[in-house]
Amino acid sequence: MAAYDDLMAYQRTTEALSQVAGRLGWDQETIMPRGAAEQRSEEMGAMEEILHARRTDPRIGDWLAAAKPASEDQKAQLRKIRRTYERNTKVPADLAAELARVTSRAQGVWAEARGNEDVAAFLPILGQVVDLRRQEAAALASDGNLYDALLNDYEPGATGVEISELFGRMRPRLVALRDKIMGASNQPDKLVGQFDADGQAKLAETLALTFGYNTDRGRIDRSVHPFSSGSGLDVRITTRVSESDPFNCFYSTIHEVGHATYEQNVDQAFLLTPLGGGVSMGVHESQSRIYENQFGRSEAFTQFLFEKMTAQFGTLSTPDPWAFYRAVNRVSPSHIRTESDEVQYNLHVMMRFDIEQKLISGQLDVADLEEAWNTQFEADFGVAVDKPSNGVLQDVHWSVGLFGYFPTYSLGNVYAGCLFEALKADIPGHEEAVRKGELSAVTDWLRDKVQVHGGLYGPKEVIERATGSAPTEEPLLSYLEAKFTKLYDL
Amino acid sequence: MAAYDDLMAYQRTTEALSQVAGRLGWDQETIMPRGAAEQRSEEMGAMEEILHARRTDPRIGDWLAAAKPASEDQKAQLRKIRRTYERNTKVPADLAAELARVTSRAQGVWAEARGNEDVAAFLPILGQVVDLRRQEAAALASDGNLYDALLNDYEPGATGVEISELFGRMRPRLVALRDKIMGASNQPDKLVGQFDADGQAKLAETLALTFGYNTDRGRIDRSVHPFSSGSGLDVRITTRVSESDPFNCFYSTIHEVGHATYEQNVDQAFLLTPLGGGVSMGVHESQSRIYENQFGRSEAFTQFLFEKMTAQFGTLSTPDPWAFYRAVNRVSPSHIRTESDEVQYNLHVMMRFDIEQKLISGQLDVADLEEAWNTQFEADFGVAVDKPSNGVLQDVHWSVGLFGYFPTYSLGNVYAGCLFEALKADIPGHEEAVRKGELSAVTDWLRDKVQVHGGLYGPKEVIERATGSAPTEEPLLSYLEAKFTKLYDL
Repeated sequence: MAAYDDLMAYQRTTEALSQVAGRLGWDQETIMPRGAAEQRSEEMGAMEEILHARRTDPRIGDWLAAAKPASEDQKAQLRKIRRTYERNTKVPADLAAELARVTSRAQGVWAEARGNEDVAAFLPILGQVVDLRRQEAAALASDGNLYDALLNDYEPGATGVEISELFGRMRPRLVALRDKIMGASNQPDKLVGQFDADGQAKLAETLALTFGYNTDRGRIDRSVHPFSSGSGLDVRITTRVSESDPFNCFYSTIHEVGHATYEQNVDQAFLLTPLGGGVSMGVHESQSRIYENQFGRSEAFTQFLFEKMTAQFGTLSTPDPWAFYRAVNRVSPSHIRTESDEVQYNLHVMMRFDIEQKLISGQLDVADLEEAWNTQFEADFGVAVDKPSNGVLQDVHWSVGLFGYFPTYSLGNVYAGCLFEALKADIPGHEEAVRKGELSAVTDWLRDKVQVHGGLYGPKEVIERATGSAPTEEPLLSYLEAKFTKLYDL
Repeated sequence: MAAYDDLMAYQRTTEALSQVAGRLGWDQETIMPRGAAEQRSEEMGAMEEILHARRTDPRIGDWLAAAKPASEDQKAQLRKIRRTYERNTKVPADLAAELARVTSRAQGVWAEARGNEDVAAFLPILGQVVDLRRQEAAALASDGNLYDALLNDYEPGATGVEISELFGRMRPRLVALRDKIMGASNQPDKLVGQFDADGQAKLAETLALTFGYNTDRGRIDRSVHPFSSGSGLDVRITTRVSESDPFNCFYSTIHEVGHATYEQNVDQAFLLTPLGGGVSMGVHESQSRIYENQFGRSEAFTQFLFEKMTAQFGTLSTPDPWAFYRAVNRVSPSHIRTESDEVQYNLHVMMRFDIEQKLISGQLDVADLEEAWNTQFEADFGVAVDKPSNGVLQDVHWSVGLFGYFPTYSLGNVYAGCLFEALKADIPGHEEAVRKGELSAVTDWLRDKVQVHGGLYGPKEVIERATGSAPTEEPLLSYLEAKFTKLYDL
């Protein structure tokens, strides 16, 4: 027992320091004085230096060799620690440091290139990022598969082949649905108008509480891009407000509440341990997506939101609940993944997945990236890319080295589909409660079936335990087809 | 050169981590969700563990032995590092850890005891704190003087004997002045009324900017007790608002701006180095005090404040600048050090100094502390202590082990007196500018003469360099006698 206890005490300090580093990032994106940026980057660098040294400390290897787990939970802790430790020690320190430096710089280069619509200015450093991540993947890959090595950082156990097959099954049905919707005569109106910022912020807080966010262990601030940050007893979310687009504020809030409640609801026995957070990016996204889409964009919940918005802002341009529901779920051609609807969102993700696989395998050179993007975009979406900020420069991910991350968004949607199907069977009357803004039955179900387990089970295992069967795309696709057939009277 | 550079790179990371720990403390006192306290205490503990390990790392000793400084600045850096390292390595790790544990707990015990007016509940843990600090002092003291060993943590180079002599010279003149004031027929009125919180916060920000606080590298928030936090490019202050007592908000803001601008104005060449902050508690307090008192409570500045307050809140109960000035500087019997006026404040400090010397020397047992306090208070102030929260339980300091800290408050006042005398000679027209709320000439003088040097010179040396002569109590006492003679028409 001594080795296990020593290891866990060591990990506890590391987890606490990691929470501190996260909170420093939160501060930077929300309330940090502008002029503090240079010093902050040194502070973050110091935290990363300490964390990297701790995460690769050879004592971890000794403890792992000597530790005798006394329970299934302890076995799971050791599995998680071993996986992380092996991953971290496989990557040479020089390479890890170079990656940190280059990706930190690349993010700034990307932002400027996007502002200037200048792809050429971004490609040289993107080439470096791709090259370094390929080197890292080579150090990590046990079987030579570079893409899988990267994917496993975000979705343990997933493979590129499996995701290709999944996406191959999803794509034709999504394209068929999208084409039917686009051809429908019965197109919804948009919600138009000006919605004052304070009113939006107030209603966003109401929505967060409605979806079970615990503000006694969190807080809501503003940032340029909404995010959720932290684990355990201090999980903070941010939102943003655009006076002409209140859905942006409300649905990004609900989305982040999905992430945040996952972190808040993990079994407190796992607090500040390796199992004390969400198990994978895919399962994390399943929580944010089911909150945002299956509940937030449902006919039942939009009736509640319609009433709240009418009370807050007066009569809306979509003056009845059905027109409002249709406005929330309007499908239209869009260049931007993050502004996309439930039907087309996964098509955006699939395109990123196709392209990034080729970049990592070496099949596609960054010099040819823009052409590849524009060609595939027009083929997939039937619309030409008009400018780089609507095309290859729209997402920050690749600049910071996030290759293998995009598919987890769609895995999240697939998992959300499975969970929603099981939840509907378990809670037959849920829609009537949701219509009144009473979500505790459904959020409790998610808490008890998924969130409480933290990192105890693998990603697919936690979904299978919650739903009773292995995850497939079928529930998501059936849900989308049924929902939009009714919405558009197809 | 290699050893010096290695040492400084190491120190830079330590300084950056120390800034992170400080910012975590700021977060805790201002915006942290209530329910995060338990996790936060583990996060702070993890940061302290890391910092303690770095500050006692034997490599520092090796680097110090091998380093060849190439300039006076480098010599000063090494002096500072050596002093801190020797201090930290003299204290056994067990004792340091025990002190951290006990003082962390004692602060909570003190707060509860104060709330319950229950001295007996506090004394056992205070006894432990005194005992541990005595052990620590014994480990630190090279000459066997326990009190000096503790004092040197806050005011390098100061001795208890020297401070006793200083206070011995100050006390009779302060008592005589206080007694004359109390006997004057011409007592000022208090400012009375209700002053709305938002108006106070707005004016506090104006005052902060007026005194040169750089909000591009800082921010102003609320906390229970106002404080300044951080060094370099991110120095944050807090204030508090009481609707019936606007001077509390305004003068605590000006006070904290004195501390904060000192940290903001240190030469940027010292950023994230051991010399990158204020040199001692006494010199720090000289900046906060000269901002708050010699300027903030001057006849010239109170005229500016009178106009600002009248514009913000309407006609005041003290309807002309002279009555307002007298209200700001009203001297009255008070049990509470922090609410005291310029004349009596140092008498409070002297009493703490007398008592804490006896606690540390072993002459006074904590069992007899309350009686000693009450007896001396009545002798010094002519008023009986009515309850422990107005007596021995009023300050947090001793609970967290701050013995040797109190006298630095009065050293700060003494230094402020010296600086003010020199500044008046250098800037003859300063009062006319201050009357208009133009403080840049005086704050620039303090920046260039004192603040820019950070920790480069010793405490007395930086005052002597600024004023041209060694610091004495004479300027402070003459200033107080002149000011209050006129104010009370003595």
